[in-house]
Amino acid sequence: MKVVRAEIIAIGDELLYGQIVDTNSHWISQELDLMGVKVVRKTTVGDDRKDILAAFASAEARADIILITGGLGPTQDDLTKPLMAEYFNCPIVENPAAVEAVTEFFKKRGREITPLNILQGHLPACCTYVPNEVGTAPGMWFERNGTYWMSMPGVPHEMKKLMRDFVLPKLPTLFPLPIIVHRMVKTVGIGESWLADLIREWENALPKNIRLAYLPSLGHVKLRLTGFGQDKNQIEKDIQKQIDMVLPSIEKYVYGYDDETLERAIGKLLTTSQKTVALAESCSGGYISHLITSISGSSSYFQGAVIPYHNQFKNEILQVRNETLSTFGAVSEETVGEMATGVRKLFNSDFGLASSGIAGPNGGTEEKPVGTVWIACAGEGFVETKKLQLTQDRMLNIQLTGVAVLNLLRICITEK
Amino acid sequence: MKVVRAEIIAIGDELLYGQIVDTNSHWISQELDLMGVKVVRKTTVGDDRKDILAAFASAEARADIILITGGLGPTQDDLTKPLMAEYFNCPIVENPAAVEAVTEFFKKRGREITPLNILQGHLPACCTYVPNEVGTAPGMWFERNGTYWMSMPGVPHEMKKLMRDFVLPKLPTLFPLPIIVHRMVKTVGIGESWLADLIREWENALPKNIRLAYLPSLGHVKLRLTGFGQDKNQIEKDIQKQIDMVLPSIEKYVYGYDDETLERAIGKLLTTSQKTVALAESCSGGYISHLITSISGSSSYFQGAVIPYHNQFKNEILQVRNETLSTFGAVSEETVGEMATGVRKLFNSDFGLASSGIAGPNGGTEEKPVGTVWIACAGEGFVETKKLQLTQDRMLNIQLTGVAVLNLLRICITEK
Repeated sequence: MKVVRAEIIAIGDELLYGQIVDTNSHWISQELDLMGVKVVRKTTVGDDRKDILAAFASAEARADIILITGGLGPTQDDLTKPLMAEYFNCPIVENPAAVEAVTEFFKKRGREITPLNILQGHLPACCTYVPNEVGTAPGMWFERNGTYWMSMPGVPHEMKKLMRDFVLPKLPTLFPLPIIVHRMVKTVGIGESWLADLIREWENALPKNIRLAYLPSLGHVKLRLTGFGQDKNQIEKDIQKQIDMVLPSIEKYVYGYDDETLERAIGKLLTTSQKTVALAESCSGGYISHLITSISGSSSYFQGAVIPYHNQFKNEILQVRNETLSTFGAVSEETVGEMATGVRKLFNSDFGLASSGIAGPNGGTEEKPVGTVWIACAGEGFVETKKLQLTQDRMLNIQLTGVAVLNLLRICITEK
Repeated sequence: MKVVRAEIIAIGDELLYGQIVDTNSHWISQELDLMGVKVVRKTTVGDDRKDILAAFASAEARADIILITGGLGPTQDDLTKPLMAEYFNCPIVENPAAVEAVTEFFKKRGREITPLNILQGHLPACCTYVPNEVGTAPGMWFERNGTYWMSMPGVPHEMKKLMRDFVLPKLPTLFPLPIIVHRMVKTVGIGESWLADLIREWENALPKNIRLAYLPSLGHVKLRLTGFGQDKNQIEKDIQKQIDMVLPSIEKYVYGYDDETLERAIGKLLTTSQKTVALAESCSGGYISHLITSISGSSSYFQGAVIPYHNQFKNEILQVRNETLSTFGAVSEETVGEMATGVRKLFNSDFGLASSGIAGPNGGTEEKPVGTVWIACAGEGFVETKKLQLTQDRMLNIQLTGVAVLNLLRICITEK
């Protein structure tokens, strides 16, 4: 099967001057990759006639499909439409359906249409008009010598709608595409190289039609399994079989699949087991509570939290003993254990979580350098603690503490 | 003055397949724009010899300076170095300084260096070696026929360090660049169009060498003043004069200049006035405490917080009266006021802040729809409250509540 080659051209001075981030190209890349279309180049050019025409010509020489975003506004510095007409050597003419659509667009919103906006319904005679239901600039589809072109507005939600409604469904009708299935296995609490060691034999024995990728991010590693073939059901079964084979080796690190997040997985675990949680956050300063409460419905299992930034409040609000604080210090196994027990009692919750550490960049000592963090999870009849040795970076330390505390809770819910 | 034209080439399959977002190109664009260098094109190509060489050739035909990121790892699919050697027609040879640097890099971290890593110190004979202090892949600088090339690793913090330490300081020595001065005036608590209305006359009367841009983001609007000229001191004075002129109209919305953030500005206000703060976060769920404690040194003014997610704890921990809760509900001016007063007392702080609202997407009623949020700031002898009517989006509501609460605190510190 011939590889289908795509190129993306993003047009607009604002992209070159760093005023806005081009999220479109990344999104388009992902969508095409999922369908088995290979993006071979992305080009960003400014609002300049010569540069845009040069980008068109060099893309046409390489690609089967060319996706263009931006440069479609109603003003003079938006050059995409006139230059596509020039490039395809055809005049711009009134397209009655497009004029009606843009007129309707304004009418619906109770706004007066201007002559400039009416012109948005005038299109190169050689293109196919693709209605844009969520904006005023139409999509334009061109074909020449076996290469297909789609011009779309740069506004992300308009571009995405045109891609989803028109371009992505059209691709399989134009090219023979492989059938591709992706599954994501999400792990936490183990580094990439340790994980690779654990599953090396399985990885080496993967069948030829299944590809594995390690995607690490902040305390997590995602395993992406990509299967190729002719029959979607069969590929899905093949992938599931491989997951079932590898799972026993890594089960205790796996918190979910595909779009799952750690905080949502924990929400489900707590909901299913009808348990509740409360937090005492010192060094993490509210970050973990924020993660938990960012999930809709968290009020059914999140009781509350205390952020006792000073020893006085660890004692007064959470009942950490002054003797513990003075003997072992705020950053210690003993203190963090009493914090977890104390907050569990205060909020009458099933689990109590706690963090205490030196987030940095200041406050480190020889014995407890910046990045030293103690975490704890208290439950009925147990207190689990763990020491982390993190980085010099304050924000990174806060985030890594968050992942570690949530993972400790996950382990306590499943194992206790 | 001739315009200096730059191009950016990002290399790596992972960028084309949408596995990672290329944040490098955007950052480089911004930095070059600030110096008056014009980026005319950005190109992303995969790990493919022909595509990379084609990108080199077409960039050389157009640009004065070419910045290349990525493709510098030690493995075989990293092609940038051999292809630059091929393109510049010179052999790859051992560079003793580069070999020593990479050896040191491993030694310092107590790791064994591999033969593959030693090869990272072998460079094209025709390039200038640029040390990379934070990674193993060196920077490489090339010059040919008046065009300058810099190859850098794709890891963002390595690329940024090479840009900041080497490339950006070098540019003014290579090209006559215009002198450009940027100042940012940061506002909060007023929308873009209202702000524009307030300062329209001033904006229309700006001198020709000063440009104004509105940069809105989540609850903030930044005003960027860009001045052009021959004399840096004079431009700075010209800009300051304009700021002094506009300030009386917008002073109560301005929290800082240039790199200042709202949470840091508040930290400074609290430190200067030797005041402390504590928070009772209901709907914001820890997010505001996280913002405040993300600032190093916040322990000197942040006393702590309580996140009482249920009425029971609003009463038990913060002493909100049950009568208030049952009469007015949790999301009410009365409750949020008592929360602020209660948390101020609990933590013995100068200011007490509180939030209570319906973050969504569920839980709204006709009287209090999703997005209804009450916030409060209590201090010696006063309680300020404010009602917000936000959006349907949970995360956006949490973030906008955060900005509003911090802004309320800012106003209370400066006006009370």
